[in-house]
Amino acid sequence: MDVIKCFICHQQCKNSILFLYTAPQGRAHGSSFAHRSELRQAKRIVVKLGSAVVTRGDECGLALGRLASIVEQVAMLQNQGREMMIVTSGAVAFGKQRLRHEILLSQSVRQALHSGHNQLKDMSLPVLEARACAAAGQSGLMALYEAMFTQYSTCTAQVLVTNLDFHDDEKRQNLNSTLQELLRMNIVPIINTNDAVVPPPEPNSDLQGVNVISIKDNDSLAARLAVEMKADLLIALSDVEGLYDSPPGTDDAKFIDIFYPGDQQSITYGTKSRVGIGGMEAKVKAALWALQGGTSVVIANGTHPKVTGHVITDIVEGKKVGTFFSEIKPAGPTVEQQTEMARNTGRTLASLHPDQRSEIICHLAELLTERKEEILAASKMDMDQAANAGHLPPAMLKRLSLSPAKLNSLAIGLRQIAVAAQDSVGRVLQRTRLAHNLELEQITVPIGVLLVIFEARPDCLPQVSALAIASGNALLLKGGKEAANTNRVLHQLTQEALSMHGVKEAVQLVSTREEVEDLCRLDKMIDLIIPRGSSQLVRDIQRAAKGIPVLGHSEGICHVYVDTEASVDKVIKIVRDSKCDYPAACNAMETLLIHRDILRTPLFDQIIDMLRTEKVKIHAGPRFASYLTFSPSEAKSLRTEYGDLECCMEVVDSMEEAVEHIHKYGSSHTDVIVTENEDTAEQFLQQLDSACVFWNASSRFADGYRFGLGAEVGISTARIHARGPVGLEGLLTTKWVLRGDGHIAADFSEQGTMKYLHENLPVTQTLAGQRDSN
Amino acid sequence: MDVIKCFICHQQCKNSILFLYTAPQGRAHGSSFAHRSELRQAKRIVVKLGSAVVTRGDECGLALGRLASIVEQVAMLQNQGREMMIVTSGAVAFGKQRLRHEILLSQSVRQALHSGHNQLKDMSLPVLEARACAAAGQSGLMALYEAMFTQYSTCTAQVLVTNLDFHDDEKRQNLNSTLQELLRMNIVPIINTNDAVVPPPEPNSDLQGVNVISIKDNDSLAARLAVEMKADLLIALSDVEGLYDSPPGTDDAKFIDIFYPGDQQSITYGTKSRVGIGGMEAKVKAALWALQGGTSVVIANGTHPKVTGHVITDIVEGKKVGTFFSEIKPAGPTVEQQTEMARNTGRTLASLHPDQRSEIICHLAELLTERKEEILAASKMDMDQAANAGHLPPAMLKRLSLSPAKLNSLAIGLRQIAVAAQDSVGRVLQRTRLAHNLELEQITVPIGVLLVIFEARPDCLPQVSALAIASGNALLLKGGKEAANTNRVLHQLTQEALSMHGVKEAVQLVSTREEVEDLCRLDKMIDLIIPRGSSQLVRDIQRAAKGIPVLGHSEGICHVYVDTEASVDKVIKIVRDSKCDYPAACNAMETLLIHRDILRTPLFDQIIDMLRTEKVKIHAGPRFASYLTFSPSEAKSLRTEYGDLECCMEVVDSMEEAVEHIHKYGSSHTDVIVTENEDTAEQFLQQLDSACVFWNASSRFADGYRFGLGAEVGISTARIHARGPVGLEGLLTTKWVLRGDGHIAADFSEQGTMKYLHENLPVTQTLAGQRDSN
Repeated sequence: MDVIKCFICHQQCKNSILFLYTAPQGRAHGSSFAHRSELRQAKRIVVKLGSAVVTRGDECGLALGRLASIVEQVAMLQNQGREMMIVTSGAVAFGKQRLRHEILLSQSVRQALHSGHNQLKDMSLPVLEARACAAAGQSGLMALYEAMFTQYSTCTAQVLVTNLDFHDDEKRQNLNSTLQELLRMNIVPIINTNDAVVPPPEPNSDLQGVNVISIKDNDSLAARLAVEMKADLLIALSDVEGLYDSPPGTDDAKFIDIFYPGDQQSITYGTKSRVGIGGMEAKVKAALWALQGGTSVVIANGTHPKVTGHVITDIVEGKKVGTFFSEIKPAGPTVEQQTEMARNTGRTLASLHPDQRSEIICHLAELLTERKEEILAASKMDMDQAANAGHLPPAMLKRLSLSPAKLNSLAIGLRQIAVAAQDSVGRVLQRTRLAHNLELEQITVPIGVLLVIFEARPDCLPQVSALAIASGNALLLKGGKEAANTNRVLHQLTQEALSMHGVKEAVQLVSTREEVEDLCRLDKMIDLIIPRGSSQLVRDIQRAAKGIPVLGHSEGICHVYVDTEASVDKVIKIVRDSKCDYPAACNAMETLLIHRDILRTPLFDQIIDMLRTEKVKIHAGPRFASYLTFSPSEAKSLRTEYGDLECCMEVVDSMEEAVEHIHKYGSSHTDVIVTENEDTAEQFLQQLDSACVFWNASSRFADGYRFGLGAEVGISTARIHARGPVGLEGLLTTKWVLRGDGHIAADFSEQGTMKYLHENLPVTQTLAGQRDSN
Repeated sequence: MDVIKCFICHQQCKNSILFLYTAPQGRAHGSSFAHRSELRQAKRIVVKLGSAVVTRGDECGLALGRLASIVEQVAMLQNQGREMMIVTSGAVAFGKQRLRHEILLSQSVRQALHSGHNQLKDMSLPVLEARACAAAGQSGLMALYEAMFTQYSTCTAQVLVTNLDFHDDEKRQNLNSTLQELLRMNIVPIINTNDAVVPPPEPNSDLQGVNVISIKDNDSLAARLAVEMKADLLIALSDVEGLYDSPPGTDDAKFIDIFYPGDQQSITYGTKSRVGIGGMEAKVKAALWALQGGTSVVIANGTHPKVTGHVITDIVEGKKVGTFFSEIKPAGPTVEQQTEMARNTGRTLASLHPDQRSEIICHLAELLTERKEEILAASKMDMDQAANAGHLPPAMLKRLSLSPAKLNSLAIGLRQIAVAAQDSVGRVLQRTRLAHNLELEQITVPIGVLLVIFEARPDCLPQVSALAIASGNALLLKGGKEAANTNRVLHQLTQEALSMHGVKEAVQLVSTREEVEDLCRLDKMIDLIIPRGSSQLVRDIQRAAKGIPVLGHSEGICHVYVDTEASVDKVIKIVRDSKCDYPAACNAMETLLIHRDILRTPLFDQIIDMLRTEKVKIHAGPRFASYLTFSPSEAKSLRTEYGDLECCMEVVDSMEEAVEHIHKYGSSHTDVIVTENEDTAEQFLQQLDSACVFWNASSRFADGYRFGLGAEVGISTARIHARGPVGLEGLLTTKWVLRGDGHIAADFSEQGTMKYLHENLPVTQTLAGQRDSN
């Protein structure tokens, strides 16, 4: 889209968009959209606002904030070139509020208020008639809409309809052409039932054919109108999240993300909504009617304070909000079903004998080499597509590629994991005799269901799968689009290996179409999320993952501190390796701290020369800059992760000050001291509070493989569970098993007959799992 | 406050409050409030809306949603009986939007739009003059305010002022009495500068005395007006969070929660705000001027989408929003300073020799018995206060009380922890030789800063403190109001013990006045939150603790499954103990699952008889109910934590079905099987995925002390870090220490000269910490 400046403020403000009347590419009307992502193409949209959305919940006044944000969204979509229509409630509420004012005044309540309010309780209160309220409120409601839409340079028009307007062909034609004309003129029609004159609904007259639906409430009005006007999308907002398969709040109620008409029998309807007429059943009927007429429908909550501000635009952007009604059921399982399958099969995987899990991994290792042609063909496809698209940088392309050598070393790594798998799940960590015949064991168990999100590195898939299988965890994998073909083949091989012990479904590959944000919402079903990718990916996931722990790190601001007593050779080697071996890695050095006494020594010159030779751009910290006559550009922040051939240099007065600096500006990832003084080194190692602390070694050693953990699922800078490079151990948790003989706690109370022994027992090398499954 | 029904809806709707004109107790004007919590008493409040709040950020239209929610909050506070005044911006923005419309029409842009829009780029655009915009916008802006406030039955009045109106005494008197009269009539005055006629600001005329402040912008206008009208509180909303000690975004910028005028020199101001005139410095000057005049001031962000809906009411409720300006600096440190002190001293605590930490705990144990009179006297004070207030249930009173016996057993427990402390921090978990002279160690280290929130149980304080000291963690403690006196004494003793090794400040007691929600916001400073109290407390904290891990469990839905092959005796004993020993405990049984074959057997009758005798109310699960002719009332949900002498009973067909039921409805806390069949038992123990799984033992054994962990900080149902009862181990994390001799990663690459050895080394019993600190 072209962007030109705003007429008024001469900047690129939101209004600029008004001048870019480029309508989204519509589609031939007649069939509804098959997938949420297609909703972006919706050109003509009806937004239905239930009374719970428009009013403050007690029908005694409008919810202005909500209304305003809805107007903002509708105006924005209209200004994108879509044709927006609003079916609104709220006239009665507005009228009540207005008439109430009149009554207050006419009863001279103001005086009463100031003279003492107790007598108010005794005053007789008039009951307001709803139709009178509607009549009195409609004009005010429209004035409010108009005032609000004016703020977005959008014109509105009022259209009041009754049931009869749809039953009489001529009237329907008139209504249709009026609305068409309004839409053509870029005006938002605001439609309501003509409540002041509306006839009582005809019983049982609806749902007997495409052209027969009574307008009993605004749900059916909106549906009728959407079909009549051939709208692409009907968004029905009320105070419920959407559809559940049983009344929400009951034990088994599950939210329905996408509803297919064929599934209708599986729904149990609850009671009516609190405010307004039209319960959930009426909403669903209206939605199905609209769907049959070719209009897609989303039923969503328009009252949730956190989402109201973007519920409509989110829906149009294809996000998982509310329940989407679709006629076309996709072939594969939904991600919820995949998670369910993974969890169930995962439990079987966890109960296998360790040897069996080991066998699966070995078999997968074999398949990687045996079926390498298949894998490499898929990889070539991905590489070709990436090359054609031409958007991947060379480093990314390198990570995307697979070679026979890579597959071989992958297989070797997998076999190491297979060995480690023998001693993972069911390992007894401690045994305690609490009392005679009452023995406690703490044993290792899998965490449950893992979600691993990785970017363009297909070799990640078998590695992570092997770690999950070895630790008995179910696994959901979401890979990047770039490696889709390779990932599919590798996942097939993984499932093939899993099949040998009947646990094929324990590892699931999630469609690349699924949004990470939506996956993070499965908080009742996923136990741990492990993002493997850019720090942006990690941060996004940490933000989105409400309630699910995330294992990983978003930043790696690693330091190398050069002490006065450092060996020149080691400094040069370690600084070079830490920065230059792989500058984009999270364990690369970002800040070089040097002791003040090193300034203006040959060592200092050698460091600078080396960095120049390696083409490392230096940014000066404030103290470093102050010591130099001509300093490099000052670092914008001492907390920068350059991720490139750049680093910050800063001066400190002592080892203690280096520790302080790192505590203040570091990310607790990996930090290094270079010194020949063992005391200084040991103090640094002890005082510094980072996941990895190194003495005379490059920061680049912070890595699961280099640490001898076989493989890693990531590096954690979190302070609980796992810290630093995370291998198999990080994917395990524990459970406490107590075996008694009818023991009860009351016997151990002060008045009781028994005493705790708390005797430590030797931990035998037999796995708990082996005893159980043999 | 009395609640009577609404005039219109005849329910207790939000409007009812209008009729209860009971003003909050005001205070003698003259001095500002000393603490945020006092803001609740503010009777007369000026709300200043900066242009960034009122406009959409580009000054090309109003932010209606924000405006509406501000109106809602102001109306609510007004209806509570407060006197609200609004100082608003936005007339220019409204006018621009309006004039823009005119220009569009007059230039016949609509036609141009439909004929093709490229020529628009070449059209000459008129520049709008701000004063003309203000004139054109003011009327529309007021109409909008009026329409919005009408929704809340609140009347508004427009007041336009200029600098001169304050400088001329007569004019000032007139303005004053006009506003007084409006407030008396319960009308919200909406004040703006008369931009159409406003004279240019006089240079350097402000801040030279109480009566001299120029109205250069709405900040100074609001301050001037607040003081003139003797307002209690001025809320200044703009697009910044409040005050930072350096420009926000720089490395060291710290948010200032409470600003004391004496601290002014410590502030560095950044650039002006993006929208509107009046940068941060002007805001602070205006705020200080108002403060000097006796009006409290809060500067806060009115544009943050997540908080806009309640920013004003939150401030008036005393929540930590924005920067609060106060003249009176409280004696003690702020909670941020306490956390800072705890973290810094905690690092020293962690670097002590294990024996020293052990000594501190032993000393604390001694103090508990030596100084018992002091403790018991404080405890008596708390008990008396609770008895006088009469609001604590007997069980709560019992938990609140301390006795010499309780103190003795506390001291014994502490000495056990002191022993465990010898082998906690700095323990080597694994050692690996990566290469010649390159050795890796994984050692235990403290987590960092813990925040423990506990309710009315003062014995919790020394226990948790001892566990934190033993594990080298800094600790923030927040106890309940009921035990405030006891907690204070116990904390003093803890600090006395800590003083012996110079780490007094490692354990901090947070004022009971601090809101839990506010503490949870210290996410950069606190590493782990441990709530000890009701499941409601835990849930609240889990919700509030964004970004900080929470260790604990919100629910304990424990099951006992009675198998066909169960011993009658053990069933009766275990079910009775599990349910009746302490029904309110989280490890008490909530659901009793019985095998179908037990129905109508003598065992079944005995179970029912026992439960009747113990007065346990039974709720029937759906299957159980279906088997009985006359069943007890059906359970509303199979996921209920009764926490009382009540339980649910349900029937299952097999052990496998019991496991399935528990997986579906349980909370993974503690679940029990009663059977004599070892195979069945072992399968249950293996298949069931709960933190604690017991065979023939009461669920009540799930407890840190009973498990032999010494003491517990809580029971975790989380799946990572710690699971089940959590003792010392759960307060530790690890760090990786690598000692090399100039090793670099590049040497180990494919082209390199070195190979990884990955040789496991024996773990010596020497603590890493001992080597370092000796």
